[in-house]
Amino acid sequence: MFTFANRHFSLSSTLTIGFVAVILFGALLLTLPIATVHGIESSFIIALFTSTSATCVTGLTLVETSTYWSFFGQFVIMMLSEIGGLGFMTFMVLMFTSARRKLRLSTQLLAQESLNLQHLSQVKLVKMIVGLSLGIQTVGAILLFFDFYPKFGLFKGIWYSIFHSVSAFCNAGFSLFGNSIATFKDNTYILTVLGILIMCGSVGFLVWRDVLTYHKRHHLSLHTKLSLRTGFVIFIGSIFLYALTENGFNNISHNTSTFHNIINIIFMAITPRTAGLVTFDYTHLSMAGTFLTMILMLIGGTPGSTAGGVKSTTIGLLAVQTWATLRGHHDVNFSNRRFPRENIYRALTLIVVAFLIVSVATFVLCMTQPLAEKMGLEYIIFEVLAAFGTTGISLGLTVHLTLFGKIVIMLMMFIGRVGIFNVMYTVLNAKNGQSDIRYPEESVLIG
Amino acid sequence: MFTFANRHFSLSSTLTIGFVAVILFGALLLTLPIATVHGIESSFIIALFTSTSATCVTGLTLVETSTYWSFFGQFVIMMLSEIGGLGFMTFMVLMFTSARRKLRLSTQLLAQESLNLQHLSQVKLVKMIVGLSLGIQTVGAILLFFDFYPKFGLFKGIWYSIFHSVSAFCNAGFSLFGNSIATFKDNTYILTVLGILIMCGSVGFLVWRDVLTYHKRHHLSLHTKLSLRTGFVIFIGSIFLYALTENGFNNISHNTSTFHNIINIIFMAITPRTAGLVTFDYTHLSMAGTFLTMILMLIGGTPGSTAGGVKSTTIGLLAVQTWATLRGHHDVNFSNRRFPRENIYRALTLIVVAFLIVSVATFVLCMTQPLAEKMGLEYIIFEVLAAFGTTGISLGLTVHLTLFGKIVIMLMMFIGRVGIFNVMYTVLNAKNGQSDIRYPEESVLIG
Ligand SMILES: [K+]
Ligand SMILES: [K+]
Repeated sequence: MFTFANRHFSLSSTLTIGFVAVILFGALLLTLPIATVHGIESSFIIALFTSTSATCVTGLTLVETSTYWSFFGQFVIMMLSEIGGLGFMTFMVLMFTSARRKLRLSTQLLAQESLNLQHLSQVKLVKMIVGLSLGIQTVGAILLFFDFYPKFGLFKGIWYSIFHSVSAFCNAGFSLFGNSIATFKDNTYILTVLGILIMCGSVGFLVWRDVLTYHKRHHLSLHTKLSLRTGFVIFIGSIFLYALTENGFNNISHNTSTFHNIINIIFMAITPRTAGLVTFDYTHLSMAGTFLTMILMLIGGTPGSTAGGVKSTTIGLLAVQTWATLRGHHDVNFSNRRFPRENIYRALTLIVVAFLIVSVATFVLCMTQPLAEKMGLEYIIFEVLAAFGTTGISLGLTVHLTLFGKIVIMLMMFIGRVGIFNVMYTVLNAKNGQSDIRYPEESVLIG
Repeated sequence: MFTFANRHFSLSSTLTIGFVAVILFGALLLTLPIATVHGIESSFIIALFTSTSATCVTGLTLVETSTYWSFFGQFVIMMLSEIGGLGFMTFMVLMFTSARRKLRLSTQLLAQESLNLQHLSQVKLVKMIVGLSLGIQTVGAILLFFDFYPKFGLFKGIWYSIFHSVSAFCNAGFSLFGNSIATFKDNTYILTVLGILIMCGSVGFLVWRDVLTYHKRHHLSLHTKLSLRTGFVIFIGSIFLYALTENGFNNISHNTSTFHNIINIIFMAITPRTAGLVTFDYTHLSMAGTFLTMILMLIGGTPGSTAGGVKSTTIGLLAVQTWATLRGHHDVNFSNRRFPRENIYRALTLIVVAFLIVSVATFVLCMTQPLAEKMGLEYIIFEVLAAFGTTGISLGLTVHLTLFGKIVIMLMMFIGRVGIFNVMYTVLNAKNGQSDIRYPEESVLIG
């Protein structure tokens, strides 16, 4: 990840350690008796797991959010999600603009014409991202309120609207309805609002910047093009495949109309990338649908967003590279740009480490986790990938996790959110030998 | 893969189409009434599946080899294994030396001092590999005969010795005992002979060449160093992990002594790489052991050997590259050599395509394959990886495969054996833009 040349600490370490601090502070707040409905002190592991899940915007839970946590506890969870979602994005903007500024100084002459110069200052970009995010969440809450007010009254209506708007935009996956959002599986309005909030949160700050400044610059960065195109292909592909595996949602629910089935299928395609709000119990999914969900959770969303996983740009870049190699081409091109070697090495490293971490986590859970008779390997892999992809959908294993299993899943959520590179650089105390961005080749964000 | 510059067909296509031809011819022979014990004509799908499994040295079976196939049928299976094992190796030698010769002509001046020039001619190398392989198999058969003769008499003793020596050396995974080699789980002598045969067949021709010519050249190629070191690490690691997951084999068998347990654990570590001969029913394995076996099958053995999977050098190269990137190093070094970029791209491509193919096969099997109540996702993934790694261990799904499932598994065996690049180049009708070998950087064989 990018490093300040003139500072002694690296941004990766700051981010990693910052997340640990936020999680611990959140856990502390959640152990207070005031945080629970019954005014009892939670065990530290429950508080820590919940704080990790909220800060890492995952949504895996040991206890039922609506009945276990008090208003104070729920408020802490919401704030942790906001820090984990929006705070993380802001930090990524700082990382990105710092590296960009450093680069601009060092390659000023060489890259004068090809450098896609940034017209926004660092502070302005941060302000824009934060303002936009809070704005979208406010609009989302208002839209939800129209439906929630008649159902839950004024206070509950306001609170539910804010909580679920934040949870959806930050892709946190927490809900206050006890069954995720299964209550609303036939409510097109709510599913649409939530779906749009989820997508807004998961595209990442670079895409937002490019889209918002397009009228001035008439240019989309390679990163934006690649992540939008990859995201679109995966989105359409997964709608088609889910419709196939679940027989157009009829396998899951016989009671919904064709129109509601379509909405539910689309929501199914949106949620596993990182959101984690679900309209039904995922144990009812077919085996093929379950496997597809695992793959989507592994992929995750866009870098610099609220998403976890290996990230869409990684997948896109690897796909382009693979195709080039198979065709016998020397260079890896996309949209008339060439990907630099470092970018591809970085994607490769990410995918190898991700595979290693997921395998090790699966292996140790297999060793330590007692499984009920009907539970196959998919229960474990699903849980590991839900944590790594910070998706938070579960087949039900979470509440059965041993203490050791809880620690493994917490680690996976942490790595999934903070990012493999940030965690690895912090652990290895290494610095990236060079900036990730070199021109005239153009890089995309990885991880 | 390497191509002749001056010929119109590529070696990749020749190999791919050659394998198809051998498989079809084998299937034809196996449909003859003379091929079965009861003198009946086999259904074409049984013959084709068996021929594919034998030629691709996998060992997955729809019918019991010893009771279904006659001596003629078994002989056909053995010959197909020999063609699939030794014939493939010979072909790889041709490919390798052709590329080498082409390279030598084109880079004669540049590389004069750094080129690790090959002292053996193409023909001499092929003769050496074939002679050595047949020699090892002959010695193996004789060693097996010492134990088999008292048990099975002269004719059966000779036949069993030859068949199992070929099956072990070619890592074919077929056996005539009805329970793989569970009969011999306490027979240290047989397990040792078979284990050594398996390892001899799975190291690949380049390692053999380097080892055999070491007294002249005092040099091991980077390929040999990397594959031996990776193989050693995986071997020792898997012994340790199996001992852990299966509680020192006590989980699987209470009747064996500690000494036999150790031998069985070592054999467990050898066999999933590609051999497929097993000393017990793998459904008795713990979930962690099952998962470990899947990973080992996915990795497979050395390129240019009887192994399938993504290959040990691929894993070794990716590990070295990943470590370099995480440490912020620009070059990827191993044993004082730098890996060329093309070599790493090739490894990357292989791993991406392998992951894609395995995922697609798993997905379509999930969709089409009815599973018994107790069967989880692991039954499907295990079967797919056993085919792709040409390992041939099964949790029992093979006999339940639908027609479509059989076709998928046959395709996986074929791709696993012929190699992703050979199949892809043939399908895409593409030529590798450049030789895989450039100096002073030194390449290793991938796939
Ligand atoms: K989530
Ligand atoms: K085999």
